[in-house]
Amino acid sequence: MDNFSYCSPTRYVFGKGTEKATGRLTAEMGVRKVRMVSGGGSARRSGLIDRVESSLKEAGIEWVELTGIQPNPTDDRVREGIGICRREEVDGVLAVGGGSVIDTAKAIAGGVPYDGDFWDFWAGKAVMERALPVGVVLTIPAAGSEGSGNSVITRLDGMHKISLRTDMALRPKFAVMNPELTFTLPPYQTASGVADMMAHIMERYFTTTEEVETTDRVAEGVLKAIITEAPRVMAEPENYDARANIMWAGTLAHNGICGCGRREDWSSHGLEHELSAVYGVTHGAGLAVVFPAWMTFMSDRRPAKIAQFARRVFGVDAADDREAALAGVERLKEFFKSLGLPVRMCELGIENADIDLLVKKFHEDKGLPFGPYYPLYEADTREIYRLML
Amino acid sequence: MDNFSYCSPTRYVFGKGTEKATGRLTAEMGVRKVRMVSGGGSARRSGLIDRVESSLKEAGIEWVELTGIQPNPTDDRVREGIGICRREEVDGVLAVGGGSVIDTAKAIAGGVPYDGDFWDFWAGKAVMERALPVGVVLTIPAAGSEGSGNSVITRLDGMHKISLRTDMALRPKFAVMNPELTFTLPPYQTASGVADMMAHIMERYFTTTEEVETTDRVAEGVLKAIITEAPRVMAEPENYDARANIMWAGTLAHNGICGCGRREDWSSHGLEHELSAVYGVTHGAGLAVVFPAWMTFMSDRRPAKIAQFARRVFGVDAADDREAALAGVERLKEFFKSLGLPVRMCELGIENADIDLLVKKFHEDKGLPFGPYYPLYEADTREIYRLML
Repeated sequence: MDNFSYCSPTRYVFGKGTEKATGRLTAEMGVRKVRMVSGGGSARRSGLIDRVESSLKEAGIEWVELTGIQPNPTDDRVREGIGICRREEVDGVLAVGGGSVIDTAKAIAGGVPYDGDFWDFWAGKAVMERALPVGVVLTIPAAGSEGSGNSVITRLDGMHKISLRTDMALRPKFAVMNPELTFTLPPYQTASGVADMMAHIMERYFTTTEEVETTDRVAEGVLKAIITEAPRVMAEPENYDARANIMWAGTLAHNGICGCGRREDWSSHGLEHELSAVYGVTHGAGLAVVFPAWMTFMSDRRPAKIAQFARRVFGVDAADDREAALAGVERLKEFFKSLGLPVRMCELGIENADIDLLVKKFHEDKGLPFGPYYPLYEADTREIYRLML
Repeated sequence: MDNFSYCSPTRYVFGKGTEKATGRLTAEMGVRKVRMVSGGGSARRSGLIDRVESSLKEAGIEWVELTGIQPNPTDDRVREGIGICRREEVDGVLAVGGGSVIDTAKAIAGGVPYDGDFWDFWAGKAVMERALPVGVVLTIPAAGSEGSGNSVITRLDGMHKISLRTDMALRPKFAVMNPELTFTLPPYQTASGVADMMAHIMERYFTTTEEVETTDRVAEGVLKAIITEAPRVMAEPENYDARANIMWAGTLAHNGICGCGRREDWSSHGLEHELSAVYGVTHGAGLAVVFPAWMTFMSDRRPAKIAQFARRVFGVDAADDREAALAGVERLKEFFKSLGLPVRMCELGIENADIDLLVKKFHEDKGLPFGPYYPLYEADTREIYRLML
């Protein structure tokens, strides 16, 4: 096991009606006026924003709105948000939505107290030490941003989708998580969220660090829970308990608890970020295509951990590691398909993929080689993208 | 799943050599002078206290010592600690040791800023809102106090051993966890620690709350890791990775992550606290006696969750719940025995147990009936104690 330093200070307020606590929790952050960031309008239409506003009002919190954040959020909206925050002198940011909304809120929170351009942090030119406090009202279990210190933003100039990971600065102070808010999520978005959370665990699970049994078992446990509960949320979108288990699993998948004591990989996320940036696909659906391809590639090169996954998570019974690993990949694909997810690029709507461009952008963004689990050079990256065809 | 609010803000600094960070971490708590609490002298003899002192010195932190804290720590030492803290104007507490040391440090931290007697909190007469910041250098993986908001203190007057659980006030700000510090733990103490951490999970696992698959799977995962790693630490006390996995499991067992979204039980801890208070037994060893008895009792009354434990954790293959549950109890007993732990009162050194006294004290401390999993009246409590004979 590797040395590690881990701190997850977010308060999770989970369950029915918990959005009513938003005002009190915001006040407890020591905040007087928030920038409330939200998405395409469904949170307003459903009445959620009204309930959140009532709660803020009751707690004496003022707010200014930034709405219309789209999936794969972009740097222009972040700059707009930062500007308004400074003019309005807000001292906190409240995200009401899913990963894109939360990541935009975080980027704004990090950018406001910084003199330079916020992208410096994403470009690796500066280290984020502080940010405005961020609160979250979660509506989509997927990205895990409600419990992570991460924020993924796409720079329109060149369509570079980059993830920033901070140890502490961008971890939300609180996350309000009411599973009822997810009842109306469309099936494709629900399923994509499931793939995303599984991917967050698998990026951490597939490690070359030996002897990490405790973290392995936690990761396998969350994966197994997802595999049990996901078909239930697809079949019964208003099953509270199934939605609740999926929602909590999405947080545990990405708040770092599944990564303690090991090198993590994140190649598959990098490979998917290029698909999202170039073809605008839904991140989770993209991961359902990328991960089986990456695992197939690894089954020939570094099969042991893929085989452990296959045996422990899917109950594959094969003595040979490569054979077990490949059987695990098939089981994972079948699982994704059963949720209505794509497992090939054409099923994502990508015909005639420009693999040269994807490979080039991947290594531009990630370096050469990239991949703690197995170092990917251009020929490897190309082969993995080909396995998605 | 039940609504819950969960926050675990402790920073875990885990791995080789991490005690060298103690000074910096203490300074980051905003502390200038600490009360350093330690146990019977082994930490001084091993050189650990010297290394911690060097680290404090480097960071410009002053300290005053309180040594000689014994297992099942008592209220007199807490009052002594509080008095010296006030006189010396310390503004933080640093525990260097295991659960008894940490719990004493926490009780002192909670008592210093309180005008009344600190026991008011343990007696339920006052709610602890604040405490001096607490840091931990952990030497015994068992109690999980390094990541919990709990503190267990025994009141000498009447020998009442009571656990206080705070949501936030007593959660350590940091926990330094170097598995190498546990290499020299004697086998019995190592094994008792294993029983203690398993019990912390099982108290949460055995719940009547339905539909808690995600938390169940996490709990089962940590239990499985313990069951794999514990025989290794017994056989190879200086196996770093086995010690590391056990140490981390001990924290996850009790920092609350295995209890999210469910009613917890804690009857077995209550039953054991009376054994410790009356007979002075090692807490973990006592739990190895109590838990199988409690589970046997429950196998006849509420077997479903015990059966799930048996099937998922020990791989018991029996269709009938009661049969599976009882087989699970046998497997658990075998496991405890394989670690050299007692599973009967006589093996704990208790001959002619005064069951009347134990039953009386249990219900005095816990109320009547007690037990969220299954309400225990005096006759039930008596039967469970008898099953330990």
